[in-house]
Amino acid sequence: MAEYQKMTREALLAEQQMLLERYKNYQAMGLKLDMSRGKPGKEQLDLSMALLQDTDYIEDGIDLRNYGIIDGIPSCKKLFADLLGVSPDNILMGPNASLSLMYDYIAQCCSHGVLGGTPWGKLPKVKFLCPVPGYDRHFTILEYFGIEMINVAMQSDGPDMDAIEELIKDEAVKGMFCVPKYSNPQGITYSDEVVRRIAALKPAAKDFRIIWDNAYCIHEIYEESDELLNIFDVLPQYGNDDMVIEVCSTSKMTFPGAGISALAASDANIADIRNRLNCQTISYDKMNQHRHAKFFGDVEGMKAHMQKHAAILKPKFEMVLDHLENELGGKGIASWIKPRGGYFISLDVMNGCAKRTGELCREAGVVLTTVGATYPYGKDPNNSNIRIAPSLPPVEELDLAAQILCVSVRLACLEKLLAK
Amino acid sequence: MAEYQKMTREALLAEQQMLLERYKNYQAMGLKLDMSRGKPGKEQLDLSMALLQDTDYIEDGIDLRNYGIIDGIPSCKKLFADLLGVSPDNILMGPNASLSLMYDYIAQCCSHGVLGGTPWGKLPKVKFLCPVPGYDRHFTILEYFGIEMINVAMQSDGPDMDAIEELIKDEAVKGMFCVPKYSNPQGITYSDEVVRRIAALKPAAKDFRIIWDNAYCIHEIYEESDELLNIFDVLPQYGNDDMVIEVCSTSKMTFPGAGISALAASDANIADIRNRLNCQTISYDKMNQHRHAKFFGDVEGMKAHMQKHAAILKPKFEMVLDHLENELGGKGIASWIKPRGGYFISLDVMNGCAKRTGELCREAGVVLTTVGATYPYGKDPNNSNIRIAPSLPPVEELDLAAQILCVSVRLACLEKLLAK
Repeated sequence: MAEYQKMTREALLAEQQMLLERYKNYQAMGLKLDMSRGKPGKEQLDLSMALLQDTDYIEDGIDLRNYGIIDGIPSCKKLFADLLGVSPDNILMGPNASLSLMYDYIAQCCSHGVLGGTPWGKLPKVKFLCPVPGYDRHFTILEYFGIEMINVAMQSDGPDMDAIEELIKDEAVKGMFCVPKYSNPQGITYSDEVVRRIAALKPAAKDFRIIWDNAYCIHEIYEESDELLNIFDVLPQYGNDDMVIEVCSTSKMTFPGAGISALAASDANIADIRNRLNCQTISYDKMNQHRHAKFFGDVEGMKAHMQKHAAILKPKFEMVLDHLENELGGKGIASWIKPRGGYFISLDVMNGCAKRTGELCREAGVVLTTVGATYPYGKDPNNSNIRIAPSLPPVEELDLAAQILCVSVRLACLEKLLAK
Repeated sequence: MAEYQKMTREALLAEQQMLLERYKNYQAMGLKLDMSRGKPGKEQLDLSMALLQDTDYIEDGIDLRNYGIIDGIPSCKKLFADLLGVSPDNILMGPNASLSLMYDYIAQCCSHGVLGGTPWGKLPKVKFLCPVPGYDRHFTILEYFGIEMINVAMQSDGPDMDAIEELIKDEAVKGMFCVPKYSNPQGITYSDEVVRRIAALKPAAKDFRIIWDNAYCIHEIYEESDELLNIFDVLPQYGNDDMVIEVCSTSKMTFPGAGISALAASDANIADIRNRLNCQTISYDKMNQHRHAKFFGDVEGMKAHMQKHAAILKPKFEMVLDHLENELGGKGIASWIKPRGGYFISLDVMNGCAKRTGELCREAGVVLTTVGATYPYGKDPNNSNIRIAPSLPPVEELDLAAQILCVSVRLACLEKLLAK
């Protein structure tokens, strides 16, 4: 298969003509396909309906239907402590999704500071490091609080640590958002070396905080899965016990929006957060916590449940990857990573062609994640990154959507090459 | 029955001797009774178990088990719009309890200001008006954000409006917390005139906000119930559409901590809050919203359900009120209001005797709400207010607890009178 950049103008025009024919045929189908967000499909949601059968809301003799237990119920704290490899004392159960845990923590840092430090909102400038491409909702939180975002390039084993070690010499740099396993959108898992270098950071800001968004902690797709080093096992070696706030949730295990979330942190951070929770909430939903604890039983039960998700997701990921390989492989216009878990495939097309690809897709009835959303302020400096979310559409729809995407990528790149 | 203040020293000593005998008998029983918080009793919690039977989580063809719908589901918005007498467009469904809605709104005012105004956190001084006695968790929120609290005395028909109209001339006074129906702890419902005067306020601060915590909006105990004027019907007459943020929840209709909450406000405030929610949450728990909407059906269904609660609560309130009347009536040492709804009985004892009453109760195995908690900073200036929460204990336990409370009040007052 020929690389586009090496083809003659005539060959490119012929290629374009052929693809425009295909594209028009897709357009004529009047499709409405959605690959925009990491939503589980219906089949996945059906996996957890038994969770709703809970009828006994008593634990250790306490009626969970009533007020109280701000930390979360013991069985749930135990479950998530085991999942994240920390003590139950270092777990707080959260609301229906971990996004709120992260938002609320950043809000707390801005209004009250970290462990008695100056509230970030009172500082002239606060900056955060953002590995890119990344998760748009992290960026939205930071933008809302007026925190300046600094792009840090992702590499094959995690964010560029040389760059980070340099950037944290600036005292205004107060933290970093990370999705350390099956990163959103690339599906990259940080290597042990990267995790160690993160744990060993010596930031100028004493109140530097890493939001360790372990959203895909057991969200494997293949049997051969990635292993993430437990950062809480490493932090004490560098006296950095307080530097990391980890969150996770069951949004993509049970029901998005009706799941439960958990936060893991050091004793000092837990006390600081609990102090806020005593003002902010009467408790989170303990009945839902109990449903989840009973449904999963233990971490092994959680993992067994996640295998059922994997069985549904795997053919969808393979479907998209096959089309990418068949249609874009060897043409020198696109690259991508085959993830072993998570919810996305990150596609990098020829610089300057991502937005146009998004347009072409939309005009053929396929909605992608807004191009640019994987970068702070919605600005992809290379206009090259596209996040593909294969989970929601049924396989037959995904088949079409992936074809349309590939044709759109090729057309967008051809337009650029021919415009030269 | 003789007034203590008119009795001779000998008569007082005899009374004390008699009461100490009774008190010792109670102590010997080794009781553990809790009248500290407005927790529903088990029988009340059992009323809502059918809510959990929901199996169909589809509304208007949308799968509520998946991401989306930040405002809350339409059926729930309609239900709470009808309950609060506003348009569904002016409703946002909230998390599992309304306390978080209030905390998050105050946090938003502090970090981002009101409708584009200066963030309160950037002002040298922010003050709030607090009708007293009031709800300790309102005070906790304000204290956490460093907002100075100013006591405003409650009168029989609501807070002292003359005082409020004077205090709002101070531009630093940015708002007020109100529980307008069956107030916590007194059970007072604001009169139409008070609601109108509140709606007509012309505060110096353009970003003055009233948190209208309608926690007990349909929480009647008797058939003859209080009617609260809908403040949103009155605000437009004074051009004050944006001045009020109303909240309510099902914490005391279904399950505390596993219910749903709602916020009602003007278009401008709703937009301001939704702007934050788009950063803070993926949505609140729509499955729980759906359970509630199906369980209640409509406002009439809600009210019918609340009558079942009333049937359980009424004998408990009457039990306590009978003891108060029998043991404290005519002695000139205590006063209280008989509420027609809500969750509390507010008891005012002779100045300087509330804390001692609490101690005596505790030493006889009865836990009351921490004395002082009904005032900002936990400081009851007269050391006279006691909040009684009769809902949790079974009637037979409540019978004993109320007796112990009355004996403790009498002993505390006798101690004071005899110390003169």
